[in-house]
Amino acid sequence: MNELELVDWLKRTVTSAQGLIVGIGHDCAVFRPNAGEDLLLKSDQLIEGVHFRSDLPPAAIGERALARPLSDIAATGGQPRICLVSLTMPQKPPAWVKGFFRGLLRLAHRTRTALGGGDLARSDRVYCDVMLCGVVPRGQALRRDGARPGDSLWVSGRLGKPWDRRIEPRLALGRQLRGQATACMDISDGLALDLHRLTKASGVAAEIERIPVARGVSIERALHGGEDYELLFTLPKNARGPRGTTRIGTIVRGTPGNMFFEERPLEPRGYDHFF
Amino acid sequence: MNELELVDWLKRTVTSAQGLIVGIGHDCAVFRPNAGEDLLLKSDQLIEGVHFRSDLPPAAIGERALARPLSDIAATGGQPRICLVSLTMPQKPPAWVKGFFRGLLRLAHRTRTALGGGDLARSDRVYCDVMLCGVVPRGQALRRDGARPGDSLWVSGRLGKPWDRRIEPRLALGRQLRGQATACMDISDGLALDLHRLTKASGVAAEIERIPVARGVSIERALHGGEDYELLFTLPKNARGPRGTTRIGTIVRGTPGNMFFEERPLEPRGYDHFF
Repeated sequence: MNELELVDWLKRTVTSAQGLIVGIGHDCAVFRPNAGEDLLLKSDQLIEGVHFRSDLPPAAIGERALARPLSDIAATGGQPRICLVSLTMPQKPPAWVKGFFRGLLRLAHRTRTALGGGDLARSDRVYCDVMLCGVVPRGQALRRDGARPGDSLWVSGRLGKPWDRRIEPRLALGRQLRGQATACMDISDGLALDLHRLTKASGVAAEIERIPVARGVSIERALHGGEDYELLFTLPKNARGPRGTTRIGTIVRGTPGNMFFEERPLEPRGYDHFF
Repeated sequence: MNELELVDWLKRTVTSAQGLIVGIGHDCAVFRPNAGEDLLLKSDQLIEGVHFRSDLPPAAIGERALARPLSDIAATGGQPRICLVSLTMPQKPPAWVKGFFRGLLRLAHRTRTALGGGDLARSDRVYCDVMLCGVVPRGQALRRDGARPGDSLWVSGRLGKPWDRRIEPRLALGRQLRGQATACMDISDGLALDLHRLTKASGVAAEIERIPVARGVSIERALHGGEDYELLFTLPKNARGPRGTTRIGTIVRGTPGNMFFEERPLEPRGYDHFF
């Protein structure tokens, strides 16, 4: 299956979407946002041997490659619109390539994301980078630097889940938090490291009182493991989190980035992809 | 240099740009286009051992990684606005990482492109994917499927230049061709293969009469070599190409994608990254 054949197959397979004027097979995708929308842009890499094991089925790799940046669009309160897929891989049977794109396109369809283009190359391992463009009503993008002392601290779901499960990006929750959450981000590198980033960006400290831990895992893993893809957010003092979320603590005055768990200092240790 | 240190250095180094509301260090970049603008989206990979040699200086790698998608924005008649940089690399000295970003940011500055974010990871070779978001006045994006029989066929610059030179994206020319060119694309995989794509997309054939060849290279290389990053475009019958462009032939009726050079059939052979 050469480049022209794959691109032809993709053109026949993908469905179009709101605002996509020019799609696969052109120099650029052309996208027309609605008036009053801000654009959200995110890219996320998925590399064989770094982010997934070589024996993961191709459809699961494709799904995961899109799920990760979708989680960031969720954390910003947005609606995904267009993705571009850069894929580098060794020679593989056509079934592998189609499996990868079928997994990705299934999730794309479910989240109303159009495949607008991408780039293909050959190398000795699978390397994928998905660029995602989403939209949010003007001025309503959630960000991580708005937490204030007295705010309550929340997470969705349970933390410390195994890496190889399916990721369900919290898109509906993110949209629900627009205009409600004072800060929001997704947990991709572990609660401790990501809360450190949120509190440092907001110029505050945090006290954690409890953590909703996934079945059968340690508190240690729930604190410092990565790949949760749940939302971490803050609400004004007396606001209540939506269904499926848990209050885990409180934002306090203090050295920006400082954290306490059960009254002891908590290290910002987690998954740093780059040390 | 760990991930937090690099991100902090980048935050201090980058300058902001028109429309960029939230930049580096957040879950998504937030970008507000002007009313009446269409968005252009493009991603382009640059891989050690595939697209460049390991001994290329880091600044040249960074510049090239951005120059390639800029060439696609040029081919669409657009103005670049925001880029996201996904970078995977082995452990390297901080000077290498800074060199890479300095090369990229110099070209970004010159073309008024803001670095809005990205993604970092470690692996055993340098892998870079740049996602670029540009803008074009509504409905004015150039595309490759509008060539009609009788149109004249043009290229910018000279073809067959060496791979390791600097790429100068033809942004000014692309903007000049808005509302003039009936079709346009950039030559990245060689004139023969890219003209085949343009004529196939437009449902036409083409006759090439002459080619502006770079100094010291063969016609063969000018036809089938890759990495030219010049613009290939068509104009209505009696229109004249801008300065620095050459008329190379004519669009004719025929089997879509068929091409002739000096009256002989021309094979659509070029650089296929994926065969």
